[in-house]
Amino acid sequence: MALIVQKYGGTSVGTIEKIKNCAKRVAKTWEDGNEVVVVVSAMSGETNRLLGLANQISELPNERELDVVASTGEQVTIGLLSIALHEMGYKAKSFCGFQIPICTDNAYTKARIQSIDGSMIRNALKDGYICVVAGFQGIDDTGAITTLGRGGSDTSAVAIAAALKADVCEIYTDVDGVYTTDPNICSDARKLDKISFEEMLELASLGAKVLQIRSVEFGMKYKVRIHVRSSFNDNPGTIVTTEDEIMEAAIVSGIAHNKNEAKITIVKVPDKPGVAAKIFRSLSDANIIVDVIVQNVSVTGNTDLTFTVGRTDYKKAMTITEKSVAEIGAEGVLGNDKIAKVSIVGMAMRSHSGVATKVFETLAQEGINILGISTSEIKISVLIEEKYAELAVRVLHAAFDLGNPA
Amino acid sequence: MALIVQKYGGTSVGTIEKIKNCAKRVAKTWEDGNEVVVVVSAMSGETNRLLGLANQISELPNERELDVVASTGEQVTIGLLSIALHEMGYKAKSFCGFQIPICTDNAYTKARIQSIDGSMIRNALKDGYICVVAGFQGIDDTGAITTLGRGGSDTSAVAIAAALKADVCEIYTDVDGVYTTDPNICSDARKLDKISFEEMLELASLGAKVLQIRSVEFGMKYKVRIHVRSSFNDNPGTIVTTEDEIMEAAIVSGIAHNKNEAKITIVKVPDKPGVAAKIFRSLSDANIIVDVIVQNVSVTGNTDLTFTVGRTDYKKAMTITEKSVAEIGAEGVLGNDKIAKVSIVGMAMRSHSGVATKVFETLAQEGINILGISTSEIKISVLIEEKYAELAVRVLHAAFDLGNPA
Repeated sequence: MALIVQKYGGTSVGTIEKIKNCAKRVAKTWEDGNEVVVVVSAMSGETNRLLGLANQISELPNERELDVVASTGEQVTIGLLSIALHEMGYKAKSFCGFQIPICTDNAYTKARIQSIDGSMIRNALKDGYICVVAGFQGIDDTGAITTLGRGGSDTSAVAIAAALKADVCEIYTDVDGVYTTDPNICSDARKLDKISFEEMLELASLGAKVLQIRSVEFGMKYKVRIHVRSSFNDNPGTIVTTEDEIMEAAIVSGIAHNKNEAKITIVKVPDKPGVAAKIFRSLSDANIIVDVIVQNVSVTGNTDLTFTVGRTDYKKAMTITEKSVAEIGAEGVLGNDKIAKVSIVGMAMRSHSGVATKVFETLAQEGINILGISTSEIKISVLIEEKYAELAVRVLHAAFDLGNPA
Repeated sequence: MALIVQKYGGTSVGTIEKIKNCAKRVAKTWEDGNEVVVVVSAMSGETNRLLGLANQISELPNERELDVVASTGEQVTIGLLSIALHEMGYKAKSFCGFQIPICTDNAYTKARIQSIDGSMIRNALKDGYICVVAGFQGIDDTGAITTLGRGGSDTSAVAIAAALKADVCEIYTDVDGVYTTDPNICSDARKLDKISFEEMLELASLGAKVLQIRSVEFGMKYKVRIHVRSSFNDNPGTIVTTEDEIMEAAIVSGIAHNKNEAKITIVKVPDKPGVAAKIFRSLSDANIIVDVIVQNVSVTGNTDLTFTVGRTDYKKAMTITEKSVAEIGAEGVLGNDKIAKVSIVGMAMRSHSGVATKVFETLAQEGINILGISTSEIKISVLIEEKYAELAVRVLHAAFDLGNPA
């Protein structure tokens, strides 16, 4: 008998019919002899409806109270799913965040989980109940309701699986699993059977929108086996797990791309301590998230500094940077908001030389100019012109032979 | 500085615009130098929408889980109203039933309040907050969410006022207060300035739908001064209070009528112990609520027994009664589902003779036949043919001179 945590997102519980289907899948898992804890999101569209009501009253609603409103979406779903399970003849019991409790800090609308007491759920499982838990929500030390931010239900599910030491945390979604790259761009993209947390983390943060990034961090920290799979069929999906469970790590596991990038270059930055700090402080004060930063070693007393931001922040970032340039005495600013970032990720990259060379050569053969490079131990990202993004993904996918099983 | 509990029903918070208006009224009460606790219902239509979702899954939804779903309506309102108050620059804090906590028994969908801890709210008031509390909901001793049944927000408000020893509990509604009778029937119906709990209880249970009956019971038990008033104007409404606060009780305070009655008469019931018990046991087993019961003293060894039920239960009640008649050996059953009950209520009726006589004479003068009579210390109810209901209300209202202030 295994203990399985299953998480169903908003599209999987978006209508009464889908909630009934979801109940059938949960029941089947239980009938197969497992203990089951289900974590659910709000019905699709519901969270937006609730936030919309609040925004009709205030442009910047009080965040403690916004969480009171927003958390009701998941509460409705746990009640309805439990009702569906009872209707089918199963014992089911719903739990809100406060009932478990799922304790968080008090950063309303983007709270972080601090601890989860698994005893209530464990007792209910012992009494033969299927447990249905509201994702996305928790409670702070003042007893106020909190929410974890968009996509927080993934994090709830993995955190609960960690607290219960579950055998697996199944994340049901509308895709079959994690692919070597976006199948819409590359027809021979291949579903991965397994991937390490580290690789998944790079892929998640690079724009492969399968799993919420914080849930992967949680999984890595507490070693929770995550199974990403489709709620529309019974095919096995992708297991996200520890590195040692993956016998022979691939040199390259997957290729992500992000077309939502804009590049800003400051020309001839004086090479003095504190200059970079000044530039990026002004951007972070404006809540602009800087992604890639590239700076060469200075040999002439000044250097060029390039960084990327999200495309929606581009104009704001340019204005702020132009102001900084005047203050620090750089020569000028160049901007380009038609940039894409393509990243190849793989655990075994650490111990293999020549990966970067292969990337550069492959792109050069297609005449794709590299505008910037950023690397980590298990990742190489290149900035290129946006129009080449799909082509770059396809040629790199072929060059590393990702279409064929390792 | 007074402590005022205000309760706003679903129609008073039915739209974003109405929630904003509600916030203005709350803020004004606070600006006038009072401590304010607001109790709110779900936005009108919301509870029905939520129950509708559950009913699409199950005809008889699991009641624990139904309360999880239904209670979200009030939770949304407390969040939105608090956001509106913050937007206006006031400190406001919302409270769900579990946060206070409002402890109830575990009779899901119709739970009864057992105790309320006022300390959380008292502390928030001390810190300068306007407190916004979800009506209709509580929590049982297992930590599960409960609801108090339809109209339960009135009860929440009065119970919270009792727990906090509030100076007054204002119930905002869409009428100006409690009238001597239905103004739609009797044009000279007069708004009462004050009425006793006992009278209000008779009027509430007799079909004057201003206050939920359990809230009046609560008010009577804990001596909570209730002020029923309109949320659409600033006119004083009706104070429901203890008898001793009402200097000179009126002989007749008001006239209620109920056209939702059906009458069943069992002819020649054998006069033996246990016969009545048998008849009414079979009806209560079928969840049929019997209202008036009239039986004469037997002089011939058998007697006629008449009782009334709600009109929607009439057919079911007739079928059951016909079966009982065969078992107990009565002669037969007569039924009439076109019956109205008209009741006159007044505290001083206890010490005045001739009230019943005046009722009978007044009706007789109009040729209205009395089909049954039932009385309590402060009430006389008569059953008449439905078609005479409005006429009876008008002539009785005039006969007791209710159009003129006492």
